[in-house]
Amino acid sequence: MRFYSDNNATVCPELMAALAEANDAATRGYGDDHWTQSLDDAFGRFFATSVSVFPVTTGTAANALALATLVPPYGAVYAHHEAHIVRDECGAPEFFSGGLRLVPLDGAGAKIDAATLERALDAMPPSVHTVQPTAVSITQATELGRVYHPCEIEAVSTLAHARKLLMHMDGARIANALVTLGCSPAAITWQAGIDVLSFGATKNGGLAAEAVVFFRADLVRDFELRRKRAGHLLSKSRYASAQLLAYVSGDVWHRNASRANDGARLIGAACGTALFEPVEANEVFARIGEDGKARLRAQGFEFYDWGAQGSGEARFVASWDHDPARIAALCGALRAL
Amino acid sequence: MRFYSDNNATVCPELMAALAEANDAATRGYGDDHWTQSLDDAFGRFFATSVSVFPVTTGTAANALALATLVPPYGAVYAHHEAHIVRDECGAPEFFSGGLRLVPLDGAGAKIDAATLERALDAMPPSVHTVQPTAVSITQATELGRVYHPCEIEAVSTLAHARKLLMHMDGARIANALVTLGCSPAAITWQAGIDVLSFGATKNGGLAAEAVVFFRADLVRDFELRRKRAGHLLSKSRYASAQLLAYVSGDVWHRNASRANDGARLIGAACGTALFEPVEANEVFARIGEDGKARLRAQGFEFYDWGAQGSGEARFVASWDHDPARIAALCGALRAL
Amino acid sequence: MRFYSDNNATVCPELMAALAEANDAATRGYGDDHWTQSLDDAFGRFFATSVSVFPVTTGTAANALALATLVPPYGAVYAHHEAHIVRDECGAPEFFSGGLRLVPLDGAGAKIDAATLERALDAMPPSVHTVQPTAVSITQATELGRVYHPCEIEAVSTLAHARKLLMHMDGARIANALVTLGCSPAAITWQAGIDVLSFGATKNGGLAAEAVVFFRADLVRDFELRRKRAGHLLSKSRYASAQLLAYVSGDVWHRNASRANDGARLIGAACGTALFEPVEANEVFARIGEDGKARLRAQGFEFYDWGAQGSGEARFVASWDHDPARIAALCGALRAL
Amino acid sequence: MRFYSDNNATVCPELMAALAEANDAATRGYGDDHWTQSLDDAFGRFFATSVSVFPVTTGTAANALALATLVPPYGAVYAHHEAHIVRDECGAPEFFSGGLRLVPLDGAGAKIDAATLERALDAMPPSVHTVQPTAVSITQATELGRVYHPCEIEAVSTLAHARKLLMHMDGARIANALVTLGCSPAAITWQAGIDVLSFGATKNGGLAAEAVVFFRADLVRDFELRRKRAGHLLSKSRYASAQLLAYVSGDVWHRNASRANDGARLIGAACGTALFEPVEANEVFARIGEDGKARLRAQGFEFYDWGAQGSGEARFVASWDHDPARIAALCGALRAL
Repeated sequence: MRFYSDNNATVCPELMAALAEANDAATRGYGDDHWTQSLDDAFGRFFATSVSVFPVTTGTAANALALATLVPPYGAVYAHHEAHIVRDECGAPEFFSGGLRLVPLDGAGAKIDAATLERALDAMPPSVHTVQPTAVSITQATELGRVYHPCEIEAVSTLAHARKLLMHMDGARIANALVTLGCSPAAITWQAGIDVLSFGATKNGGLAAEAVVFFRADLVRDFELRRKRAGHLLSKSRYASAQLLAYVSGDVWHRNASRANDGARLIGAACGTALFEPVEANEVFARIGEDGKARLRAQGFEFYDWGAQGSGEARFVASWDHDPARIAALCGALRAL
Repeated sequence: MRFYSDNNATVCPELMAALAEANDAATRGYGDDHWTQSLDDAFGRFFATSVSVFPVTTGTAANALALATLVPPYGAVYAHHEAHIVRDECGAPEFFSGGLRLVPLDGAGAKIDAATLERALDAMPPSVHTVQPTAVSITQATELGRVYHPCEIEAVSTLAHARKLLMHMDGARIANALVTLGCSPAAITWQAGIDVLSFGATKNGGLAAEAVVFFRADLVRDFELRRKRAGHLLSKSRYASAQLLAYVSGDVWHRNASRANDGARLIGAACGTALFEPVEANEVFARIGEDGKARLRAQGFEFYDWGAQGSGEARFVASWDHDPARIAALCGALRAL
Repeated sequence: MRFYSDNNATVCPELMAALAEANDAATRGYGDDHWTQSLDDAFGRFFATSVSVFPVTTGTAANALALATLVPPYGAVYAHHEAHIVRDECGAPEFFSGGLRLVPLDGAGAKIDAATLERALDAMPPSVHTVQPTAVSITQATELGRVYHPCEIEAVSTLAHARKLLMHMDGARIANALVTLGCSPAAITWQAGIDVLSFGATKNGGLAAEAVVFFRADLVRDFELRRKRAGHLLSKSRYASAQLLAYVSGDVWHRNASRANDGARLIGAACGTALFEPVEANEVFARIGEDGKARLRAQGFEFYDWGAQGSGEARFVASWDHDPARIAALCGALRAL
Repeated sequence: MRFYSDNNATVCPELMAALAEANDAATRGYGDDHWTQSLDDAFGRFFATSVSVFPVTTGTAANALALATLVPPYGAVYAHHEAHIVRDECGAPEFFSGGLRLVPLDGAGAKIDAATLERALDAMPPSVHTVQPTAVSITQATELGRVYHPCEIEAVSTLAHARKLLMHMDGARIANALVTLGCSPAAITWQAGIDVLSFGATKNGGLAAEAVVFFRADLVRDFELRRKRAGHLLSKSRYASAQLLAYVSGDVWHRNASRANDGARLIGAACGTALFEPVEANEVFARIGEDGKARLRAQGFEFYDWGAQGSGEARFVASWDHDPARIAALCGALRAL
């Protein structure tokens, strides 16, 4: 019974159907197909604004390509120290940009706030001797399963923009955040000051379907050359694009994320006081002791350790395709601890 | 009627079925699944030797990751000036390696031979002032639709190895070459001195399924870190791996490539004396004049211009899923020129 | 009256004489001269062990070349957040290495200790998803004018080596530290576990004379290619080498550093309780208020602000060539605050 | 008797005097000194136009920093295959830029002409799949000791600019070319379409004194950050700047280059029909046979082999400080062959 990650899940039927539909006939390669050509429109409707959208196959590629397009080799990007770009991408932002600096910030729930950002910026006034502050990256939902409210994002963006920094959002789980917030996709992105978004669908029912979404056309710059050069321009782009179209055009994203969030909420409730972060998306963080973890594993539950060695912390992730019976079994086991 | 490229083609039924089969249940991510774990064995049988295999989604990624693993930032890689890595990857080898140098070589049919390589090596004796010769990359089948015979590969490899250079093969169309040569996969790779191979399946019926195949375990080095760092480690690796398994385990690769080659042979025959390269795989190169090209296009045939502007050269590519009626139509139109 | 930095100072007579002596006749270029060829021996005597020494012209080049030779593009280097490589080199380590990560650590006096390093290492267990811990860099004397005692260095080195990390020392002011400690150059370098040293002479009387000193021959690796490629192999290397020989062969380094330290000690004493770091080398850090700073500046004293804006902190640096009368004037002004 | 290279030479008295003069008193670091601050004016007078000038210590650094400022990581730079940036800098342009491509061109005398450049540009029409043509780099005097006449430069520049490429000149031996041409510095640089120049003084009497000269202020871009990040911003910049001021402000450059050229002319005349390039600067290229080379070496003459192994070609370089007696001895020995 796997609760490792939502990237262990299957691909949802609508997206499998989209793959089959895209396979009907040959078409031109490298994005010169009608699926890929429709992305800007479909995402434009989703976000209620004009956007430039580029499919890629991994969230790491989306994040690193987005940042490398915004940030020069000597630029600094401010992000939470738990951010995926900081901890889990083997230095992809540094690689794609030719050496940018990630400046790690603290913050509860893996969120950063404007005051923390301001202190960090003030601590290193730029000169020819320093890296140059250029962008801020936040994750929605965060790596601790928390969501930023629109006004929180806006507070960070306002400061960032005032200091001439650009705003990037890692939206690997943006659908989960949207379901929780009940707000529009616009409200937590461009309306709150986000300039570029890594839009994730893989964890929420896609095969390998992510996208970089630019809310400002002038920031697209040389993105397409950088994507090609990084081996992320798919010759058969239509299969990624068809998934993305199916994902945002109907309620697939919402239904899938709702299921995942519902599962997490149940697990969270079963954790009781062991919970150390509120459950706001599809991830659950609980301090159940090394002993508790061992007992769960003995019963066949699989999940990641969290925190430092010996911290007794565990992470459980619910997926769009979770089996209610297995969630119930986990909840029972957690309550029995 | 599209003859642009074999990457315009659809995904073949066996590989679509493999996707569906891999979608049956959740599994661990990042390659820790039984499909990906089986690749070494399946490819080991295919190549009749022990190999280390890593799936990626594009040929550009396969080439650039392979070369960056073999070659230091100040290394030189010798390749034909028509090679995909030289002309069509927007500098991916330079990017992935941190600045390697591609040294372009001449050669008929986009093939390089040992004598040309030797002259190039002798022309720049390495010192602390020069880039350091480190690898040779050849393409099978070549960018002009030609194939290297095993002994031709061996001649280049023998010189390369004598000079302490490693051998890379870009096998984006290796299946087409194998069908033409009628030899074993081993004969044109490790038995002929190839150290690392970019193995292509996408152009021959895959969705986005390529692999890097190491024939020497000691050369794998830090490949996995480089792949992750480049955003090419798929969280849902099983969908790529399942395709690759289906592709090499039966006769899918052979049947698909045979169909494509057959189509090209017909087109080539129709070109008559306009042909300027023998048809040895699934690509046809013909000098039909700017006028001839215009007339074909007026009849609805789509294909790429080749050579310099005004050269009157055209490239036609046959795919695994070509429609015999359309091939026949093209042949008729070519004969009518 | 300038107390900005010891790099504002002049070149000492012995090193000017060395330049003149090296200018006597033509000689072979690129280090193939007897001055450069003598560096290993001269530094070997200085450090009482076998070393490999390479001249460069800036401390930034020395640090970045040393680190890039030790650390792969996906490697992590642990250093104090005040370290020159973190704050003052515009991302040179990231540039030279192709994207390494600097992990900033806390610590009093800009020193790091083993416990802090251990916590940082434990917080990010390496996997294919993370950057790979590879080296530790410490500064002697530190950016807050403090010195590491040999046993402090050894404690960090022992942990680092146990975790398979290499030890780098930024010795831009190593002479100042040696004078304070009164120990041998060996005691704070290789005997304490340092693998590679950036040896500074520029701040202590040189023109543009720094060196990278390897205490382990196997770590030299491709340093010479990296130096050439970075434009740091001087065709007329003899002028840098001749300075370095004059610097380490006699007591120039000791006399110059002693003078600078003496000046700093006087200034420190004049600061009284305003001092917020003990004076252990040639830098003085004092909290004298924004008002105090303004008054000093009105009297013609020049120095850098320190700390956050409005902190009232100032840094004064004494040089090998300071004028005792000006030091006395500054001391008087400080006492009058 | 060394005829290896003009970088084996000594530093001329005027530049040694400039060093001593710059050493008179402490001054602010990192170029914030009056010598460095005067460079724009002094070079502006030299070139009879407004310029932005930045000192560095090596020609490799000057070339690579200039190109990295002009060219993106996926850019292509067209240069002669004998160019120093192609053959002798260990891939520095690729390193500094993050992976640019050098496209080698043919041309007599190591000069490129507009027709060759045009063919190369036409052979690779830019698309998202290709590297992007961005700059042309020519060397004055060339690596075969030839000079470009102003109209030759202008022909290349006109084409380059028409195709939106920028023009870089490697002027490691620009003084030697100026003396030969007898024209103004303006005539072979900005008036002929050069946008950025690597200005060399080291080979012509400097210690380690080179400069990057921008003829268009808008092209300076982020040069200063790139220089710092590469470890090429000298803390004691005044010593480099003082040399450069002394070099261009009087006739030092002219007198030194004249002496070197005169020496080369004598050697060239002594070579007779063995000469395979006209002597237009301070380098002499002669085909004297392996035997002839051995005989010269037996008499104590030192020089580099040229061309492929066994070609019998040799290069002799005359320096500003050559000893007329030794030149005479070489001439005698050459005539005796």
